[in-house]
Amino acid sequence: MKLHERAIMPQGFKCASKNCGIKEEGRDIAIFYSTVSANAAGVFTRNKFPGAPIILGREIIKDGSLRAIIVNSKVSHVGTGLEGIENARRMAAAVSGEFNIPENEVIMSSTGVIAQQLPIVTIENGVRGMSEELVDDPIAGAKGIMTTDTYPKALSVSVEGAVITIVGKGSGMIEPNMATMLVYIFTDAKIGISRLDEMLRKAVGKSFNMLSVDTDTSTSDTCIIMANGLAGTVDEKKFSETLELACIEMVKMLARDGEGATKLLLANITGAGSEEEAKIIAKVIVNSPLVKTMAYGADPNIGRILMAIGKCMDCEIIPEKIELKINDKLVYQNQDRVDFNEIEVRKLLGGDRVEIKANLNIGSGGAIAYGCDLTEGYIEENTAYYSS
Amino acid sequence: MKLHERAIMPQGFKCASKNCGIKEEGRDIAIFYSTVSANAAGVFTRNKFPGAPIILGREIIKDGSLRAIIVNSKVSHVGTGLEGIENARRMAAAVSGEFNIPENEVIMSSTGVIAQQLPIVTIENGVRGMSEELVDDPIAGAKGIMTTDTYPKALSVSVEGAVITIVGKGSGMIEPNMATMLVYIFTDAKIGISRLDEMLRKAVGKSFNMLSVDTDTSTSDTCIIMANGLAGTVDEKKFSETLELACIEMVKMLARDGEGATKLLLANITGAGSEEEAKIIAKVIVNSPLVKTMAYGADPNIGRILMAIGKCMDCEIIPEKIELKINDKLVYQNQDRVDFNEIEVRKLLGGDRVEIKANLNIGSGGAIAYGCDLTEGYIEENTAYYSS
Repeated sequence: MKLHERAIMPQGFKCASKNCGIKEEGRDIAIFYSTVSANAAGVFTRNKFPGAPIILGREIIKDGSLRAIIVNSKVSHVGTGLEGIENARRMAAAVSGEFNIPENEVIMSSTGVIAQQLPIVTIENGVRGMSEELVDDPIAGAKGIMTTDTYPKALSVSVEGAVITIVGKGSGMIEPNMATMLVYIFTDAKIGISRLDEMLRKAVGKSFNMLSVDTDTSTSDTCIIMANGLAGTVDEKKFSETLELACIEMVKMLARDGEGATKLLLANITGAGSEEEAKIIAKVIVNSPLVKTMAYGADPNIGRILMAIGKCMDCEIIPEKIELKINDKLVYQNQDRVDFNEIEVRKLLGGDRVEIKANLNIGSGGAIAYGCDLTEGYIEENTAYYSS
Repeated sequence: MKLHERAIMPQGFKCASKNCGIKEEGRDIAIFYSTVSANAAGVFTRNKFPGAPIILGREIIKDGSLRAIIVNSKVSHVGTGLEGIENARRMAAAVSGEFNIPENEVIMSSTGVIAQQLPIVTIENGVRGMSEELVDDPIAGAKGIMTTDTYPKALSVSVEGAVITIVGKGSGMIEPNMATMLVYIFTDAKIGISRLDEMLRKAVGKSFNMLSVDTDTSTSDTCIIMANGLAGTVDEKKFSETLELACIEMVKMLARDGEGATKLLLANITGAGSEEEAKIIAKVIVNSPLVKTMAYGADPNIGRILMAIGKCMDCEIIPEKIELKINDKLVYQNQDRVDFNEIEVRKLLGGDRVEIKANLNIGSGGAIAYGCDLTEGYIEENTAYYSS
């Protein structure tokens, strides 16, 4: 799989974004649009305190067809009761009116501060005229959905004559069963609804669900795929594989841009008792504050990785058998450090990508989790998020 | 229960600490000693990568009688294989020889860097002569077990003519099933071994197991109780209650002195489906980096508490029913913020103690968890822990 040098929108997809007045400055609203009805599937946060857009979105996606997605940033629209549900409906209605498309083919997302009502009139006014502002550049849409992201994120890849484009945002409150994260996937491939849903869930399981920035699970996580069919049918196996790889690329972008992050952290587990256990252990490693700060400081305190593995109390772990590699260099084996040299380990941890490989030597379960280091930048961003 | 103004050792207990050369400066070894054999019980980390002292300690405690505890700081003695087990044995043997007590009545703890062999000869040399240095002040022992703690921790309380004294250390890698934490409890009350074990487990369940600084679980967590009987029998119910309260006081000291912490964070859950679920939710709140940074910054982003509650995907949660209080002021009810005033909420969060009360209004399950805020200080300490 090779990423396009510059992300493009697949045939028939367009987007627009602007400042409509929710934020004092910067874009705060984005619309993604397909000129024809697209087959669609979606997965949402498992947080038990989901936002109004999630509650409605789960219903909307059931029909499996979408024309547009509207997203606002700054207010997450969570914990807002019936008034919130009504406001989410009005967001869809505004897009339906502006673009002359069915209201039940518009899905909405909100991201930002929790437990605050949406300024719905501001959004309704903002949507007016946006059908005239559509462009082909996915970055325009990506800019409208950013919160603490440091740059807009979009990528494209070609597969079998079709294009897959992923637009996403992070970058805190990112953990299981969706990073705190909004991700929209657009393709002009022609794929049936149930197959699309299946492919999305498979790809998300290996990618977004293996991403964690801070163990916190957002109330707004959403990943939607729209396939408008304009490029015709494709080899579905190949498409599915490419989709998964493209999602992993987006995961890496999101992880690297985690709040305050200076490096990408990967935990690659092999030899676990099962794939399920490998996933748990991989996630625990990228979530450990002590592993994350070790990576940040390039501190050669590699025993912390053993601590993190040992925390997985319900997984099968045999300390005597564990082997650790950091960026492919063997550092721990046979219950002892291997040729331990402080300066060398510091160097291994010093780059902008730290891959921890742990072979448990028990079974054949494997998994990779994606995360980032923990820095003062995370603290700084989150001690004054409300006010910023 | 009223704490003594100054901690004292119960009758027949003494301690000593010194620098024996593991650290360049500061005390790195401590011994706690009873003049007569004491009934004893202990609980240890559930981390699957336990240190050599834990592996041996579990065997030693089975006999239910102890004369002494030896503790070193700086090297945690974890992931060190058979050589590690042998070195832990030698630690006990050194104390046995110096104090002329049975080797199987000496238990050991180590805390510090993981996956590094213990400098056992340095320790053996250090132990020599310590029987001449015993004092009555528990702070002397507390000083010898500190790592990143900012001050030595000991407290005493009287109950029924007996004294309970707790000496403890934190202060990172503190989470379930023992904080990363060494805690030693001494009493001159006379209590049978199995009853002592029962009381200890009950007290730990409500106290140390409800403490979390950073979700990381140490490989060395240990809590030992020694009851030497010199004060005679006591009302066991009253003793047990006092023990639990004293443990909670030590938990608060450890939480407040969590790495980089500026405030104590309490999550007090009521109305949960069960006590088990209340414990899970309380822990998740004090562990949420976004709640912790909110507390640190006194940022009035109280919706994050809802997010944290919602993360408990396997617990029964009905968003419509949740009520939140911060330091006893109602802030969220009926799916909306109550009289939200940014400045007032900032003030509520601004002190050195933030208690979050959440009533789920479902059942009668309740629990309190203890933690601290997350600050740049945590990052700073942990990016260079190895070298410090």
